[in-house]
Amino acid sequence: MRKHASEIEKDLNLAYLELAKGREPDGQQPPSPPPDDFKLIGTPTSRLDGFLIVTGKARYTHDLFFDHLLHGKILRSPYASAEIMSVDLSAAQSLPGVEAVIQLKEGQVKYEGEPIAAVAAVSEIAAEEALRRIRVEFRQLPHVVSPEKAREEGAPRVHDSGNVEKFNEYSRGDVEKGFAEADVVLERTYKTAVEIHHTAETHASIAKWDEDQLTVWDSTQAIFSVRDGLARALNIPASKVRVIKTYMGGGFGSKLGVNDHTVIAARLARQTGRPVKITLSRRENSLCVGNRPSTLITIKGGAKKDGTLLALSMTNYTCGGIGRGDRSSEPLIDIYRCPNVKVEEYTVYTHTCASRPTRAPGHVQGTFALEGFLDELAAELGLDPLELRKKNCTTANQGDTGLPYSSKGLLQCYELGAKKIGWSRRNKKPGETQGVKRRGLGMASQIWWGAGVPGTLADVKIHRDGSVEVVSGTQDIGTGTRTYMATIVAETLGLKPEAVTVKIGDTVYPWAPSSGGSQTTPSVAPAVREAAMQAAAELKKLAAKKLEASPGDIVLENGRVKVKDNPERSISFAEAARELRREAVFHGIRGDLPGGFAYNSFGAHFVEVEVDVQTGQVKVLNVVAAHEVGRVINRLTAESQVVGGIIQGTSASLFEERLIDESTGQMVNPNLQSYKIATTMDVPEITPLFVDMVDPRINNLGTKGLGEPPRIPIAAAIANAVYNAIGVHLREIPMTPDRVLAALKKKEANP
Amino acid sequence: MRKHASEIEKDLNLAYLELAKGREPDGQQPPSPPPDDFKLIGTPTSRLDGFLIVTGKARYTHDLFFDHLLHGKILRSPYASAEIMSVDLSAAQSLPGVEAVIQLKEGQVKYEGEPIAAVAAVSEIAAEEALRRIRVEFRQLPHVVSPEKAREEGAPRVHDSGNVEKFNEYSRGDVEKGFAEADVVLERTYKTAVEIHHTAETHASIAKWDEDQLTVWDSTQAIFSVRDGLARALNIPASKVRVIKTYMGGGFGSKLGVNDHTVIAARLARQTGRPVKITLSRRENSLCVGNRPSTLITIKGGAKKDGTLLALSMTNYTCGGIGRGDRSSEPLIDIYRCPNVKVEEYTVYTHTCASRPTRAPGHVQGTFALEGFLDELAAELGLDPLELRKKNCTTANQGDTGLPYSSKGLLQCYELGAKKIGWSRRNKKPGETQGVKRRGLGMASQIWWGAGVPGTLADVKIHRDGSVEVVSGTQDIGTGTRTYMATIVAETLGLKPEAVTVKIGDTVYPWAPSSGGSQTTPSVAPAVREAAMQAAAELKKLAAKKLEASPGDIVLENGRVKVKDNPERSISFAEAARELRREAVFHGIRGDLPGGFAYNSFGAHFVEVEVDVQTGQVKVLNVVAAHEVGRVINRLTAESQVVGGIIQGTSASLFEERLIDESTGQMVNPNLQSYKIATTMDVPEITPLFVDMVDPRINNLGTKGLGEPPRIPIAAAIANAVYNAIGVHLREIPMTPDRVLAALKKKEANP
Repeated sequence: MRKHASEIEKDLNLAYLELAKGREPDGQQPPSPPPDDFKLIGTPTSRLDGFLIVTGKARYTHDLFFDHLLHGKILRSPYASAEIMSVDLSAAQSLPGVEAVIQLKEGQVKYEGEPIAAVAAVSEIAAEEALRRIRVEFRQLPHVVSPEKAREEGAPRVHDSGNVEKFNEYSRGDVEKGFAEADVVLERTYKTAVEIHHTAETHASIAKWDEDQLTVWDSTQAIFSVRDGLARALNIPASKVRVIKTYMGGGFGSKLGVNDHTVIAARLARQTGRPVKITLSRRENSLCVGNRPSTLITIKGGAKKDGTLLALSMTNYTCGGIGRGDRSSEPLIDIYRCPNVKVEEYTVYTHTCASRPTRAPGHVQGTFALEGFLDELAAELGLDPLELRKKNCTTANQGDTGLPYSSKGLLQCYELGAKKIGWSRRNKKPGETQGVKRRGLGMASQIWWGAGVPGTLADVKIHRDGSVEVVSGTQDIGTGTRTYMATIVAETLGLKPEAVTVKIGDTVYPWAPSSGGSQTTPSVAPAVREAAMQAAAELKKLAAKKLEASPGDIVLENGRVKVKDNPERSISFAEAARELRREAVFHGIRGDLPGGFAYNSFGAHFVEVEVDVQTGQVKVLNVVAAHEVGRVINRLTAESQVVGGIIQGTSASLFEERLIDESTGQMVNPNLQSYKIATTMDVPEITPLFVDMVDPRINNLGTKGLGEPPRIPIAAAIANAVYNAIGVHLREIPMTPDRVLAALKKKEANP
Repeated sequence: MRKHASEIEKDLNLAYLELAKGREPDGQQPPSPPPDDFKLIGTPTSRLDGFLIVTGKARYTHDLFFDHLLHGKILRSPYASAEIMSVDLSAAQSLPGVEAVIQLKEGQVKYEGEPIAAVAAVSEIAAEEALRRIRVEFRQLPHVVSPEKAREEGAPRVHDSGNVEKFNEYSRGDVEKGFAEADVVLERTYKTAVEIHHTAETHASIAKWDEDQLTVWDSTQAIFSVRDGLARALNIPASKVRVIKTYMGGGFGSKLGVNDHTVIAARLARQTGRPVKITLSRRENSLCVGNRPSTLITIKGGAKKDGTLLALSMTNYTCGGIGRGDRSSEPLIDIYRCPNVKVEEYTVYTHTCASRPTRAPGHVQGTFALEGFLDELAAELGLDPLELRKKNCTTANQGDTGLPYSSKGLLQCYELGAKKIGWSRRNKKPGETQGVKRRGLGMASQIWWGAGVPGTLADVKIHRDGSVEVVSGTQDIGTGTRTYMATIVAETLGLKPEAVTVKIGDTVYPWAPSSGGSQTTPSVAPAVREAAMQAAAELKKLAAKKLEASPGDIVLENGRVKVKDNPERSISFAEAARELRREAVFHGIRGDLPGGFAYNSFGAHFVEVEVDVQTGQVKVLNVVAAHEVGRVINRLTAESQVVGGIIQGTSASLFEERLIDESTGQMVNPNLQSYKIATTMDVPEITPLFVDMVDPRINNLGTKGLGEPPRIPIAAAIANAVYNAIGVHLREIPMTPDRVLAALKKKEANP
């Protein structure tokens, strides 16, 4: 059994107080906080590539064309479970314009959409026709596509080892003891549906060989990971593969790591000696590139009358198709002080495509369950749900490390959000209002990681004509990476962001991690800052010589290099750059994280909903999202990130669900007509708020990541608001009108 | 007047002796010489890209195609001197398939081939037709195309400032006093023709814009210089320009810096929004991309009876068309001990294309004159010409610096070459043999620079799968740069050269200088070595941990990482690489040159010829080329470099001459049918020899450059061999049969 944080914390509140006073727990002074006199960092800056994107000039992978380009298409299994008896490629091969036909698979297929064969042809039409001419003889096998059925005895086996596998357990303290000591014990079960990553841009790859060197243009969140994955799949050295990403329209986890179609494009290109492009259809996007696993989570919790949590247990049955489901217990383990915790998580296998990380994997589902449960517990205890959360707030990570947080602004999030939404307006008793359209307020908290990856690299290059580049092998997945890179360099060198050329998305550039897990900003921004600081120091040194001053007295601002307090003595930035012998490159690295702290980000969403008790429709009116992510680099794109997360989360909470016909094993809504996502009319008013806090330890800018956080608490906050409106707690995502009506009906039956 | 080296040298021979004993002139110990226990460095290694090149798979700029590519063509002046009265582009613009027509020039044109207008069209044929439809009205102006005519009073003025301009003068001691003290004084005049850089691949550029970012694929020796030149020409920041060079087929100086056609391609591409390729024809190559200036050099020299040089003076009239001619006095100033030297150099302007550096600019012409003169002086003194050179050999640079050479193997070159050719076989009296075909031996010495450019960068990248890259923004101009880069890394990491992926020729890579002036190897090789040493150190550290040994006891060899003297304890290179957290990049830099030394390379060519006194034909039978270039990195490509230089020099010495019709001002041989270059049948047997010497100071490999050296002394060595064969000294390049016959006739008339 692992050691509980509280055991080593002694007195959490004291430690927190000490931290707040600016002292380390061991009595040492904290490091100097990063400077706060920034002119650009922290302000709203329009995306430098925004004009290109909104005018359609930004070129995405599918927009790229090459001389002698071929189009690749993939033949996929129509069956969830079948044996391939024979494959006849001959009719496809003899079709004019078809340059290659390859078989990818023999034996058993285990999900609808599994690749069987692929073609490369001079046109998309020829490639499609060739697919139609491939003859595959199948023997259908029994399938199981619902996790409930898969858990039944005698269900068709997905893997030889069985359909259910425990993959995570955790425990601290003694939950049974905790339950015994509790004034109130409650047990509830929550369910979440499979959600498809519906990226605006579907997956696309172009592969091109120059002798033994492979170059791939890919719509990806992870150029280095795709490079290494391709090298392994093709059994060639990583040094022979280059991956380039230009612009991309969303990934949400489905573009991490190398995809099947990318390897297939590379194989077809090698065979034909010509570049091959494969762009997946919306249908393929629905069937074959992953999804968010479903969960079935039972939480049992016990608390004292005053709301002090004494014990929490969780059992999760999560289904990731032929792959593993999501570990969903982290929020329950980490976020609130609770001495006795026990977790068991099981994955359930079905004959569906393997799941993939989907924006805040596990946390979305686990938070829906945990934060919903807490509201039910608060109601049971007759407490304000917000007060219950404050009561159990902690200053140290409750999981394995037990370390104090480097910074934690969750209490401030509560304060900001409650004030903005008007928390006192809520129904004091859930469902106490009347009428057809009933309003309610709800809230939920969130914890996430996103401290950044040590070893991330960025270069700043100063040309002798005064032009400036910032270069890193990171990728902009739609979040504004280019813009904050330019902003940080501009801030440090006293330039405008427009004056900085940003080069990213190419594995020939310095290493940076995959863009996922809220890691990009806290990885790349500090490396950029570090390189820019070095560049500034060198320019100050050169300018000091020219201006006959000390480097310490030189300042860089407004495109000029000046002697402090002596505005007469200055030269332009370009004149200073001309003092370089030649272009100078400064290498920045995101260093290691100081030990002794837990690095997490926090947030709380406050939601107002209106529920139509006749139609069952839930309308989200208003969302106030308060987040603590250390320093906000670009207020505009940070707010966009929050707005995007909430739109996506609102959509998934209310509408989204992969539907599979159990008899055929086939998905019935592999398209955006029948798989519903939120439209503009469904989007609430959203108010992003940030706690004005700089993490003094995490990195040289005091900034944390913000990719996942806004996606995490929204579902629970909506469910809690619905509860507040109609007195019925919805324990299933999506909260569709039929589920609302069914819950209301059930309540009527058992008031 | 500058201070002569001898004044600060005190006793040259003593200093030389001290150096030879391994002591610095000031009594200090020299630095440790670079290690000599190399397994790969110094051995002959086949070019890693050789197979691709000889099978036609290597893709040169002209071989690259892009989607929507346009072809650009340039309309050029047919006149050497004319005024453009009007240009009518309309008929060209209205031609189907023509996407852009631009006027480049107004007012006066000053050489045949000067660009006037350009077109971009969907095919080369359409572009050519469009050129034909451009109507230009010229008013012809008087022209002057021969330097002799240009120096005449009343000649048409090429530039307003006049046709003759002094551009270099140098003096040390008192030449008049030297001549007065001399036992023999001689004065001779030497003439060299204009030579065209006939690169196997003519110039080609492709320009492509992505919004405000310009990418140019260029057949160039200097990607960074082309990048910066383009930025200046187009008035855009250098950060917005990227230049890529794939393979290229020779430059010899004509591909240094940005060319007109490259800027034109960029302008056409910007205007059309499509990529534009311009490949120059052989005719354009002859007319418009530079040439080696002609020279008319008069040397006067005085010596004591024993051969001791007392005074040398030189007057050079060099013609570089509308540009400046070549400074040709460096060999005369630097290479031999001579207390009194005086130089005056004048450029003569004509209405021909501006010259360009051409493999060993100035040194080729100056060495032809100087080394020819020395043979004439030796004959006058009755001395062996080799003895005359040895007599005046020096250990310190005789020019401005007066510093001792970091290493100098010229005496060893004399020894090796004389032995190999059988120097004692020569005619003791020039022209003493009889018969129709007469043989003779001649030799000449050479000095050049090539110490490398401090600040050159190279990265070594180790992937976790054990694959290795070496990356530098250098370019392989046909000399084997890729191969020695791989060899140095392989040597340092205990791998095979084939295991190292080389990435060069892209301005996104770390900075490296232009490939010219014999600078590439001594710039890039030390940077690569430095990066590889860092990589080796890191891998040793990681492996030491795994093998439980001290890093100092770890050796990298044969693809394994071993504990020294304990072959049992070892892991594979890939296993060691797997210990890295991720791909690791090591930055190497070629550091500053230690002060206090002159850095030069040396060589001597020994030639045997057969002259047919009936036809005047000179046949070069045999060339022994002995060079001292510090450490030879790759013996095979070094030998190829020597062989190439000698073929090129033999060709220029015997055949090559740009011919211009004085009445029309037009070149009469702008093609390879009438401009003669050597064929295989004209190529002598060539024996490259290298002095086994490592420069202990120049860099971490002790290596110097070898681009120019083999091109420098060959003409003089052939002329001296002809002199030895027939007793007539040819003072004009090319040594065509008519010139040989004319010289023989003149000798008969004045025996």
